[in-house]
Amino acid sequence: MTERDLIEQIQDLACYEGEGLVQGIGDDCAVVEKDQRNVWLLTMDTLIESVHFDCSWHPPYLLGCKAVSVNVSDIAAMGGRPVFALLSLGLPADFTPEWAVELSRGINDACRQYGCLLIGGDTVCSPEKVTLTLTLIGETKKDRVLYRHAACIGDTIWVSGSLGYAAAGLDCFRSGNVVGMPPEYPSELAPCIKAHLDPEARVDLARSLAQTSCIHAMMDLSDGLATDLSHLCQQSRVGAIIKAEKLPGRRGLAPAASLLNKKRSDWMLAGGEDYELLFTADPKDSQTIMDIAARQGLRVSPVGTVIAGQGVTLQRKTTEGYEEQHISFQGFDHFARN
Amino acid sequence: MTERDLIEQIQDLACYEGEGLVQGIGDDCAVVEKDQRNVWLLTMDTLIESVHFDCSWHPPYLLGCKAVSVNVSDIAAMGGRPVFALLSLGLPADFTPEWAVELSRGINDACRQYGCLLIGGDTVCSPEKVTLTLTLIGETKKDRVLYRHAACIGDTIWVSGSLGYAAAGLDCFRSGNVVGMPPEYPSELAPCIKAHLDPEARVDLARSLAQTSCIHAMMDLSDGLATDLSHLCQQSRVGAIIKAEKLPGRRGLAPAASLLNKKRSDWMLAGGEDYELLFTADPKDSQTIMDIAARQGLRVSPVGTVIAGQGVTLQRKTTEGYEEQHISFQGFDHFARN
Repeated sequence: MTERDLIEQIQDLACYEGEGLVQGIGDDCAVVEKDQRNVWLLTMDTLIESVHFDCSWHPPYLLGCKAVSVNVSDIAAMGGRPVFALLSLGLPADFTPEWAVELSRGINDACRQYGCLLIGGDTVCSPEKVTLTLTLIGETKKDRVLYRHAACIGDTIWVSGSLGYAAAGLDCFRSGNVVGMPPEYPSELAPCIKAHLDPEARVDLARSLAQTSCIHAMMDLSDGLATDLSHLCQQSRVGAIIKAEKLPGRRGLAPAASLLNKKRSDWMLAGGEDYELLFTADPKDSQTIMDIAARQGLRVSPVGTVIAGQGVTLQRKTTEGYEEQHISFQGFDHFARN
Repeated sequence: MTERDLIEQIQDLACYEGEGLVQGIGDDCAVVEKDQRNVWLLTMDTLIESVHFDCSWHPPYLLGCKAVSVNVSDIAAMGGRPVFALLSLGLPADFTPEWAVELSRGINDACRQYGCLLIGGDTVCSPEKVTLTLTLIGETKKDRVLYRHAACIGDTIWVSGSLGYAAAGLDCFRSGNVVGMPPEYPSELAPCIKAHLDPEARVDLARSLAQTSCIHAMMDLSDGLATDLSHLCQQSRVGAIIKAEKLPGRRGLAPAASLLNKKRSDWMLAGGEDYELLFTADPKDSQTIMDIAARQGLRVSPVGTVIAGQGVTLQRKTTEGYEEQHISFQGFDHFARN
């Protein structure tokens, strides 16, 4: 049994319908009724030392910020604003108090920055590794929630910001090419390092997009474009074509790519933890979308098109035309099982 | 810095006031406004293998049930009914699928039994130990929430059920005196073993008590009577006297006490994980309280009295009258700091 099989088995046990439940497991957040016009968005993510972060290079303050941002990103992805947070912190017996206090300061400052209140949780002993679980509660109008399952054939596929920066930043640390704490890093790597250590959830952009009513489907990018877009397509019962030359971020990835001798497209397609927005909309609304992003000083890029069928196909320009490659779930065919 | 110092430092960073927040950190749940008449109760607890449970004797199905029950107990303690649950499950790479599926079944069945819906969460890789974090969301009327801070001088102090069973059950396993899986255990130890492996949250009793308006303060017993009552007293700015001979459960603890050569009062006062209710009420309402419990087939016992001052004092009958002992926070003076 793979981890995915298990997750599916657990999901099968969970609830999809019930009193007050608008959306159960299967999107960035669960959605429940708050009152007649509003809903609450609920999400929960765990970060475990040595699996999701490495204390040897992640300053505790930024780790605290990141733990909040990755959860807030799920709220943003559905068009909500974060309201409340709960924290469960597992600390080994030999924790450094200064480290834990810096972590807490980061959590608290990030909550304040996103406008949400840290209202509860617990602190427990952990046998060996630091564990950080956050539950975020967001709010929005019932008719403004954006789901993964509403992409339409013919839609333009958009992403915010740049792709692959966080994965490149992580590889810089893992390879041993970047050491020390900020601001000691080489400046040409700073955007990638920042994306890994301290990502920012796109709350304001997502809220503005949700207000327009022109976005069909939305989610956040946490597992890489190939995997996340595959989920969006699967839930919308459509397929997608991505154009390689449209993927944003090639220039910013160049220093890390030459330092580590890596292919930028691997980071852009398969790199996780972008925490950018992935969304689809009718092509007629492209100007509206670009205007909204421009007003916030953010970049949005049309990277492909929703098509009939299933799976995600990457098109690359060649001298003879186009070369196509299936990249659903990073090349793993999610529909075929052994 | 002790764990408690750190918790207090983190709590100081957290929010006590804000839009929609009725009660922040410091009670069994955070309380937030749902609509004009109702509130939501939010709680989150983490269980980590080898710290909070031991897979060698805890059947995964019952562990799943327990993870839900201990969180539901926090909802019950404030007079609420559980509505939604989120689960974050950390599994080591070498997990047994059958084990994980049994665990999930337990979580799901317990949610159903308590009438709440499992609506989301995540599954992550854990480097070594199984970790289980649940967030529970409950609901009740705003004017029916029961807090820890409302005990009044002269109140009778009550506990539901029996004390110390779970701690005795745990000690039976730890000592190696009980091995194997149910129903192989010696029958005279069954109540203690059940209390440790599969506690039950007192939702119905708590709800009925909350309806009467005669309960002043309430919380659940998770860290042992001495510690939990100290918290209740501290937050109510009162003291308490407990009468040793009134503590319920002596007879049921006898087999475990003689097997392990332990003092029953240690389990009853300092044993954790009772998940019974601890509450205070005017003595004139004693009959009402006993009638409510009797209707549900549950036992409630008056164990002491709220007094002016601070701290918890245990009174024991001796041949010459009474002997007194300060037992606040299990004998540790929470107010004195080095």
